[in-house]
Amino acid sequence: MSAFKVALVQTRVHKDREENLEEAILNVEKASALGANIVCLPELFLTRYFCQSEDTDCFDLAEPIPGPTTDRFCGEAKKRGVFIVCPLFEKRASGVYHNSLVLIDPAGEVSGIYRKMHIPDDPGYFEKFYFAPGDTGFSCFETGFAKIGTLICWDQWYPEAARIASLRGADLIFYPTAIGWHTNEDEHSKNTQLEAWRTVQRAHAISNGIYVAAVNRVGFEESGENGGGIDFWGNSFVCDPEGAVISEASGEKEEIILADIDLRKLEETRRNWPFLRDRRIDAYSELQQRFIDNDSGT
Amino acid sequence: MSAFKVALVQTRVHKDREENLEEAILNVEKASALGANIVCLPELFLTRYFCQSEDTDCFDLAEPIPGPTTDRFCGEAKKRGVFIVCPLFEKRASGVYHNSLVLIDPAGEVSGIYRKMHIPDDPGYFEKFYFAPGDTGFSCFETGFAKIGTLICWDQWYPEAARIASLRGADLIFYPTAIGWHTNEDEHSKNTQLEAWRTVQRAHAISNGIYVAAVNRVGFEESGENGGGIDFWGNSFVCDPEGAVISEASGEKEEIILADIDLRKLEETRRNWPFLRDRRIDAYSELQQRFIDNDSGT
Repeated sequence: MSAFKVALVQTRVHKDREENLEEAILNVEKASALGANIVCLPELFLTRYFCQSEDTDCFDLAEPIPGPTTDRFCGEAKKRGVFIVCPLFEKRASGVYHNSLVLIDPAGEVSGIYRKMHIPDDPGYFEKFYFAPGDTGFSCFETGFAKIGTLICWDQWYPEAARIASLRGADLIFYPTAIGWHTNEDEHSKNTQLEAWRTVQRAHAISNGIYVAAVNRVGFEESGENGGGIDFWGNSFVCDPEGAVISEASGEKEEIILADIDLRKLEETRRNWPFLRDRRIDAYSELQQRFIDNDSGT
Repeated sequence: MSAFKVALVQTRVHKDREENLEEAILNVEKASALGANIVCLPELFLTRYFCQSEDTDCFDLAEPIPGPTTDRFCGEAKKRGVFIVCPLFEKRASGVYHNSLVLIDPAGEVSGIYRKMHIPDDPGYFEKFYFAPGDTGFSCFETGFAKIGTLICWDQWYPEAARIASLRGADLIFYPTAIGWHTNEDEHSKNTQLEAWRTVQRAHAISNGIYVAAVNRVGFEESGENGGGIDFWGNSFVCDPEGAVISEASGEKEEIILADIDLRKLEETRRNWPFLRDRRIDAYSELQQRFIDNDSGT
């Protein structure tokens, strides 16, 4: 099958975890009714973005894989006959937590797990406190429709991640995300960030000849400090292998957006832009260095 | 010194090589008078884009480094007190030709050489016939103003090249270019290509926190076959480390565009977007593979 439909669920996240869970289940049902074959939820959609501060109590929010959340979505995937990309805060062991996602297949099984490899740490995004860096590598998973890569949020700034997923065969990369603006930023800075976020991901589509789907949350979540917080900017989108945006959500609303993925388009694009053919794999070893000091300049 | 000025020379290329040479010399003089510290010329600017067909006689167009062209530009660089990024068709030995560039310093010396690492081969761009793949690696060069990376055209589609130049310390990457549309393409296809070209390069700026400067030629050059040819699309531009375009040329005209490069902006951007900090250098070895077969999907 060369064509199929994906749904991105852009949601506002409530304080009540059960409410978020039930809403997500309902959204999977809705997306399925709209014809989606694969439904992707946003990063850590079960809870408010707790990484705005460092609080050991928040580790209570984590759960094992498999666990109650995966069980619930496995049931829903089987009932609706869809794949679900389901992010969650994973407790792997005491003191070993990950920002993870599972791929659930239409048989109701967890058929893949990905643990966020690139972990940010910025004011208001204290993820290094909560999440151990992933050890899954940049995997991709067979769905029968296509091979899909699954990366998470901060990964989206790294061409290395998108490239390896593509080399592993990904036709489409999902990026569940939680990204927004701080309350004190001006309009110019906000626009620059949003545009940069869109640009790097569209570039992954172009340089690899793949589809890219970014799924963000929306709405303001206070940090509890001086009226501060993060205004999550939505703007979930899907772009095609030429980098053209083919489906796009607003910056404010909860919505499900759909996109038709056509592997014939991918094939055609890669025939005309044969970038993968000409990679200089003999000359890329330095990518494994943090920085290259004392370059002699020759 | 944290701020300096670069000039990109977007030119139409005439049939007569001497005319192109004299025009380029004049443009260096003009750019220098406008205050440029570094002047970049487009890929293979001395000749029409001969790679539209495969013709062994075209090897006569190549010349050694150092050679008459570098001698001439070394004199000009010294006279004007500027750096010149000067692309040329290099004859290294009989049967060993490269699509190269030299960096010439204000003392009038060739202080760096780069040989195009990624060689395209598409209908109308038969570069694999003419150019051996470069063996310089993705170098960067100290100018006193900044470290600059120098890549060429097709390299611009490869995040690996921009990343390695950045890890070697490049604050700014120049991309001398010769890219255009075939005569038989429709408007939609043309716009898609131009937008993709701009997007991938802006993404290099964003993901590495560097300035990027792309310098294209402009104008139609016939292939000699059935009225066909390439319409070189100009649109030379400079973008800052946030990916914002700060200087841009038209799609039709010969022009010199200028941009102020401010390393304080680069420093500020990398403090706020610390992408280089979080690279998973332990997990990138697969970038040295052509493709990863038989992925088990886990």
